[in-house]
Amino acid sequence: MVQGPRHIESSCDVLIVGAGPAGLMAARMLSEFVRQDPSLKVRIIDKRSTKVYNGQADGLQCRTLESFKNLGLADQIVAEANDMCTIALYNPDENGHIRRTDRIPDTLPGISRYHQCVLHQGRIERHFLDSIAEVSDTRIKVERPVQPQKLELDESKAEDNSAYPVKIELRYMREDESVPLQFGHKVENGLFRSNLQTQEEEDSHYALPEGMEPDMVETVHAKYVIGCDGGHSWVRRTLGFNMIGEQTDYIWGVLDAVPASNFPDIRSRCAIHSADSGSIMIIPREDGLVRFYVQLQARAKQGERVDRTAFTPEVVIENAKKIFHPYSFDVSRLDWFTAYHIGQRVTDKFSKNERIFIAGDACHTHSPKAGQGMNTSMMDTYNLCWKLGLVLTGRAERSILKTYESERQPFAQALIDFDHQFSRLFSGRPAKDVADEMGVSMDAFKEAFVKGNKFASGTAICYDASPIVAKGDKGCAITSTPSLAKNIEVGTRFESRQVVRHSEGLPIELGDLLYMNGAFRLILFAGNAADCTQMARIQKFAAYLDSANSVISKYTPAGQHRNATIETITVHSNTREEVEMHDFPAPSLFPKYDYDKIYADCESWHKGHAHAYDHYGIDRQKGCVVVVRPDGYVAAVLDLEDTDKLDAYFGQFMVAPKNAVGANQDPDWTFKTQRA
Amino acid sequence: MVQGPRHIESSCDVLIVGAGPAGLMAARMLSEFVRQDPSLKVRIIDKRSTKVYNGQADGLQCRTLESFKNLGLADQIVAEANDMCTIALYNPDENGHIRRTDRIPDTLPGISRYHQCVLHQGRIERHFLDSIAEVSDTRIKVERPVQPQKLELDESKAEDNSAYPVKIELRYMREDESVPLQFGHKVENGLFRSNLQTQEEEDSHYALPEGMEPDMVETVHAKYVIGCDGGHSWVRRTLGFNMIGEQTDYIWGVLDAVPASNFPDIRSRCAIHSADSGSIMIIPREDGLVRFYVQLQARAKQGERVDRTAFTPEVVIENAKKIFHPYSFDVSRLDWFTAYHIGQRVTDKFSKNERIFIAGDACHTHSPKAGQGMNTSMMDTYNLCWKLGLVLTGRAERSILKTYESERQPFAQALIDFDHQFSRLFSGRPAKDVADEMGVSMDAFKEAFVKGNKFASGTAICYDASPIVAKGDKGCAITSTPSLAKNIEVGTRFESRQVVRHSEGLPIELGDLLYMNGAFRLILFAGNAADCTQMARIQKFAAYLDSANSVISKYTPAGQHRNATIETITVHSNTREEVEMHDFPAPSLFPKYDYDKIYADCESWHKGHAHAYDHYGIDRQKGCVVVVRPDGYVAAVLDLEDTDKLDAYFGQFMVAPKNAVGANQDPDWTFKTQRA
Repeated sequence: MVQGPRHIESSCDVLIVGAGPAGLMAARMLSEFVRQDPSLKVRIIDKRSTKVYNGQADGLQCRTLESFKNLGLADQIVAEANDMCTIALYNPDENGHIRRTDRIPDTLPGISRYHQCVLHQGRIERHFLDSIAEVSDTRIKVERPVQPQKLELDESKAEDNSAYPVKIELRYMREDESVPLQFGHKVENGLFRSNLQTQEEEDSHYALPEGMEPDMVETVHAKYVIGCDGGHSWVRRTLGFNMIGEQTDYIWGVLDAVPASNFPDIRSRCAIHSADSGSIMIIPREDGLVRFYVQLQARAKQGERVDRTAFTPEVVIENAKKIFHPYSFDVSRLDWFTAYHIGQRVTDKFSKNERIFIAGDACHTHSPKAGQGMNTSMMDTYNLCWKLGLVLTGRAERSILKTYESERQPFAQALIDFDHQFSRLFSGRPAKDVADEMGVSMDAFKEAFVKGNKFASGTAICYDASPIVAKGDKGCAITSTPSLAKNIEVGTRFESRQVVRHSEGLPIELGDLLYMNGAFRLILFAGNAADCTQMARIQKFAAYLDSANSVISKYTPAGQHRNATIETITVHSNTREEVEMHDFPAPSLFPKYDYDKIYADCESWHKGHAHAYDHYGIDRQKGCVVVVRPDGYVAAVLDLEDTDKLDAYFGQFMVAPKNAVGANQDPDWTFKTQRA
Repeated sequence: MVQGPRHIESSCDVLIVGAGPAGLMAARMLSEFVRQDPSLKVRIIDKRSTKVYNGQADGLQCRTLESFKNLGLADQIVAEANDMCTIALYNPDENGHIRRTDRIPDTLPGISRYHQCVLHQGRIERHFLDSIAEVSDTRIKVERPVQPQKLELDESKAEDNSAYPVKIELRYMREDESVPLQFGHKVENGLFRSNLQTQEEEDSHYALPEGMEPDMVETVHAKYVIGCDGGHSWVRRTLGFNMIGEQTDYIWGVLDAVPASNFPDIRSRCAIHSADSGSIMIIPREDGLVRFYVQLQARAKQGERVDRTAFTPEVVIENAKKIFHPYSFDVSRLDWFTAYHIGQRVTDKFSKNERIFIAGDACHTHSPKAGQGMNTSMMDTYNLCWKLGLVLTGRAERSILKTYESERQPFAQALIDFDHQFSRLFSGRPAKDVADEMGVSMDAFKEAFVKGNKFASGTAICYDASPIVAKGDKGCAITSTPSLAKNIEVGTRFESRQVVRHSEGLPIELGDLLYMNGAFRLILFAGNAADCTQMARIQKFAAYLDSANSVISKYTPAGQHRNATIETITVHSNTREEVEMHDFPAPSLFPKYDYDKIYADCESWHKGHAHAYDHYGIDRQKGCVVVVRPDGYVAAVLDLEDTDKLDAYFGQFMVAPKNAVGANQDPDWTFKTQRA
């Protein structure tokens, strides 16, 4: 018999700590690279014995849904979620009664093909778990309940690509440690357990990974560790990174309930400011549930911990009744409640030597009401992990990893600043009149709300210049020519627009073509391909792509499809009668029997003409080349002749394999097609 | 020990013979009634040991997809299917080479919110089987391989509601009998087995229902039998019904293949007429597959059976190459092939005493190229089974069952006539010039094609006047007032249009509200509800609905939701600010806390204004009431004062239960809301 807990040792490429939204997004992103290279070893651990969360519902923002689409996750999630659609603003009238003063769209029209919606976090995690299992062929599984207890980095080996410089010690937990806590007490009653989760509860049992025992310790030698372990992040604290910011003194209660109320906008998102009783935000959810954020009368004292046990559902409901007056309000079924006070903090650093990263709530905390927490967390690892995947599969230099912090830290800071302003406007008492300087002007509130909505959608993010963002004349080896696509801002996400698939005339969203598989895209806006001069330019560009020295020929490993690392998608500005798909150079632009590479910016039968060229501000005659990163952000806007810039751009960070695919010619493919 | 096969006896409400599309639709429709009344016993048998079909792909027409939506089947099927989008027409040019002469939309713009698409029949059957299992709570399962061998009807008991007048003898088949046959031979090679079907093939084993043995005989006493047993229907032959019509002498080969071709419309639906080598129809399918219908040189002789074994894939491919010339054509992967000659026949009778019905191919056969077979078959039982469900659950008189034949037989005849004309135009040699009277004019062909497309979409069906269709002044106890909804034709399907859900402003398709649960719908186009006079009319209509003598109070069994038999949906013509949902009379129009009953025909944030009133031709001030059948067809158009007509309409065929829900008042619900 062995005395004391067993101790084992192992190594892996990436260890993800925490299986919440940030950790699951990391695992999902890396699944794609594991699919491509099954020798990669990616692990994800969590200290909870199950994914079940109580009540956590979250808004899904436009940009998050766009990213989900490129991971094959959007369709099902959108079908299950509740589209929030409208925001109603209520303010006190002359009698001090709340009254609807405005209705505005929840998603600003035109900013995305997706609308903000709400879905229970447990369902979102379920879709992630299923997708991870499918894409990684079950190679990546969440290991629970497992806790890290020691973390060391051998900085001398940080830049050695082949090294495993991170040593992390894991402990397999006992059943009694792994039950989630709530308000400092064990879960005690049905209130805390959402009845949405029956399916999930089936999985909700304590089971260590096969062959492991409670209290067993495993020392893992990892190439990379990602700390996605939440607001109290053990990884962050172990690294000694500080959260910088402050707490407000406002305290809010939260109810997830099926309401019984005659309030006419109970199924709309609402921002309600009462005269003296505080504010409410309503977030209508799926399946008849409604979430209520209810401002409470109590205040927190700076520097003191609030005794959360003092807040009961009854206290929250009572205050909600006061705010809703003269409308009736009661709860016909209560699913969950909590209380919190708002803290706004962000870390100054997001990584240690680009070997240990932190992401999500581990880096930033803020109020939940703008629905940013889960979204920002997921978008952190969405940003990090394609870079990490390219490094791990030998396609990119480690230098690319520096852009994780340089892109995400400023965004987190901006988020905190936004939240700071927004939450004070929301928690403040409405001004009684223009002379009431202590009160909040409801016009200022509405303005902040509308502005905030654009920010909160995630579509406004614009990453700064860096080796992977060719913007202005700094930070990158090349400069873009913005005038070629006047409405495309380099550093923002490539916005989807409908075009028509040449092969059969079906309207297709360009965004649907950007499946996240680690490939950069060259979107060739080919211009007027029916014009001989322009066709000559197209052919020259295509000849470059097929030549031995093109970025495709150099950076695509031998044996892989030529689309694997850099994919070309052609969008011409002609009708499907003015040119034929066989007119486009083969194989680079029109690979043999591949009918999904050529698109037309023209009228469709059933969904009109989206005028993609005009929308992007691209000349219909001359076109341009838009370089899109694997995460869908615009890297550069170039001319068809700028092939040297393509060389220079990818030359900054890509690794040329010893065996590359090289030049590609397909001499059989010379048939000349008819012209209508 | 028992000598010889065992013999058992049983009874059931409905026995469906055949688990193809018609049979599965019947089972799916009846699942809903089994869900409502689990004492109902519905069985479905099939003589094949598995649902696996080889190669059968079929077009799904607009109206079929609309119906699928109301059964919860459309979203997944549309996501998997291939949208056909465009039809290209090719005809011989002056050199006798084929050349594209036209491109037209495959689905006429504006006729439906769905487009025609194609999906492998095996997948469609899979979705049906899953849905039947879910809705019936696995009470309905396909029993295989089981064959009927005797059928008798005791006509003296046909009109006795409680009787089981049909006696049908079933035999449980041996494994060696149940393998599907193809061309008179057992399946011998991979060619006949689609590689799309790996998932399906797992189910593809011989397994009798539990407790049953090969050659066992079961005598079933059934209230109703539905013969969905295909073109060679045993049920039809046993009843002695005749198929009336003829065969053409054209022979066609069919290939399901991944083509290797430089034909520029290989991913479009195409109708290709060559000068001398015959015609081809292309149907692009899911997953890169393309179906080719290839006219062969051989002709059938009237009255003689064609030796199908003479047609090999090579013969079909060779002929396709000739027709495609000068384009190259070959097959890089062949999934399936067959050959057929066109027969056009229809039975004169669809039922025996409304106790034994036949449906689908058992009633009508025609050419497959217009994609009508599977659609018409499913729509037969879609029509029959809501009626049967209402009779079985005691809600409707047996007289309603007569409308199955009166509605479907004329449609089948029209389909045969259409197919007769269409297939001759398609198989005929193109006219060389206007003087070539033996040839087919390509203009006439295009015209027939476009007309045919409207017909083929299924949206043009208009059922004749009958007790359930109040049209003109015959056949029904009441007359509609068509001028109240100028663009709604009584007897056609209620066309979906976008409206806005009042409670939160979300754009919703009215068609999505017509879930097939056996309920009729009263769509109250409430008109201008902000106007006092009109609101008085609305309130009077609502007071009728809540009164003890309304059709809802009389025909809804006690203990059931007031929506169960006749559901009211309100669509007003105001904005969401001009009226509040609480302004509508409760509980009839706005049941307490039910936020899904009131809709506005107004602008939405993201999807514009669909102008539903104008589209339907309804006066925005006065409105009207549209009565919609459980299958989504318009039964009547009435005025808000026509409550006596509602009484008379439902009085013709509905059964008032002894215990009905009666008047409904909800006196607590009197809160007056604000008006903006």
